[in-house]
Amino acid sequence: MTYCIAASINEGLILVSDSRTNAGIDNVSTHGKMHAFATNSDRIIVLLCAGNLATTQAVFEQLHRDKIKNAPINVNNVECLSEAAAYLGHVSLEKQKQHLNAEGQSAFNPSASFILAGQIGSEPHGAYMVYAEGNSITSSANTPFLQIGESKYGKPILDRFLKLNTSIDEAARCCLVSMDSTIRSNASVGPPVEMLIYRKDTFRFEEYYCFDDDNDYLLQLRRSWETKLREAVAALPSLNKESIRSMQVTL
Amino acid sequence: MTYCIAASINEGLILVSDSRTNAGIDNVSTHGKMHAFATNSDRIIVLLCAGNLATTQAVFEQLHRDKIKNAPINVNNVECLSEAAAYLGHVSLEKQKQHLNAEGQSAFNPSASFILAGQIGSEPHGAYMVYAEGNSITSSANTPFLQIGESKYGKPILDRFLKLNTSIDEAARCCLVSMDSTIRSNASVGPPVEMLIYRKDTFRFEEYYCFDDDNDYLLQLRRSWETKLREAVAALPSLNKESIRSMQVTL
Repeated sequence: MTYCIAASINEGLILVSDSRTNAGIDNVSTHGKMHAFATNSDRIIVLLCAGNLATTQAVFEQLHRDKIKNAPINVNNVECLSEAAAYLGHVSLEKQKQHLNAEGQSAFNPSASFILAGQIGSEPHGAYMVYAEGNSITSSANTPFLQIGESKYGKPILDRFLKLNTSIDEAARCCLVSMDSTIRSNASVGPPVEMLIYRKDTFRFEEYYCFDDDNDYLLQLRRSWETKLREAVAALPSLNKESIRSMQVTL
Repeated sequence: MTYCIAASINEGLILVSDSRTNAGIDNVSTHGKMHAFATNSDRIIVLLCAGNLATTQAVFEQLHRDKIKNAPINVNNVECLSEAAAYLGHVSLEKQKQHLNAEGQSAFNPSASFILAGQIGSEPHGAYMVYAEGNSITSSANTPFLQIGESKYGKPILDRFLKLNTSIDEAARCCLVSMDSTIRSNASVGPPVEMLIYRKDTFRFEEYYCFDDDNDYLLQLRRSWETKLREAVAALPSLNKESIRSMQVTL
């Protein structure tokens, strides 16, 4: 499994990914899921990936080849992120189709999904989620984040706290807590945790972190969160016994 | 969708369920998912249910009929909760099979899952999750709770805080927060929220609550949780900029 988050807020982008891959529960290994392109200096494009590792690697290879051959469409000449997402979706679908027979079936599941995030030229920064079917959606003012993979455990904190105007450092910490909760609840999501903080209009990979499981900061974050959460649980208002009702015993 | 929790801790049981059912996203209605049996006074048995509503209602009807006919196996003569769970699993499977054709297929998904919780005679209290396949598991010292339905959003708080020795009132509040987070993240889980707190060896449905969406206590609980969570986010340690690494730009 995988868990990746892309937050696109006023100050910029936060991208977070885990590194665990598995082909069956007894075949677990570590592969980074955050990949940056060496592009022209007018753009910055980063991919997060989930799903079949063979598919995602084949897609990256194709995008890389298209770039160095200066193909009619490649990461260096797309004019905006939505065009980049459409191009990625097209390549992904092509790679998946290679493993389908005439009936559209495969002995394994070749599907993969992606988040493409970055900034191109004078366009605003942003993020797109590219589905296995090749289509894509972007984030919005109401929901300024995208998730791929094991998204549910870590979603409540993002739902509650991630807003367009959240400061980028606080948003980064929220994303790390979301990742930490997911790692705790799903053994197939695991460290190292990669995080890129991209401040808009800088066009540089400035703040990149890679946290191992025993990283001091990640341990501090986890302890701080657990302590405060314990206080939050302790502070919850007591049940009002006056609102006890008689239970209908119906069976 | 549905979300139900059963916590089985030292002091007793906490059962929580939502009330939203839907047959398609445009056909949403309200059905309680917590059902108590009128049994002999030496036992208390409560069911929580998820899945196909026709199946769960047919199962309840059968269990009720078996009881009033005093069938060879019924809720009044099973000797322990595991026997009750096996009986429930058997009935559930029979009801599901009625909707399968000779190839074992159905035009719809008749599957349903249950939590059976309570206490019988001198046996300890407990809870069993009965899968759609008819088999069942119980909770454990490590994981003193069971969930059916939309379990992921609300699992992290239970993973972090629910222990065998948690006080029953605090455990009840944890379960309500777990339910509230799920309601917030999944529109197909909704109020009223039913909660039964069963203190062991009492054999009475003592503390039953039914919270509507605008229930004062539930609003207080939600506000208290959000305020404290906000403080927890604000108190998270700042990133150590010294641990910034250079990002590998590989594509």
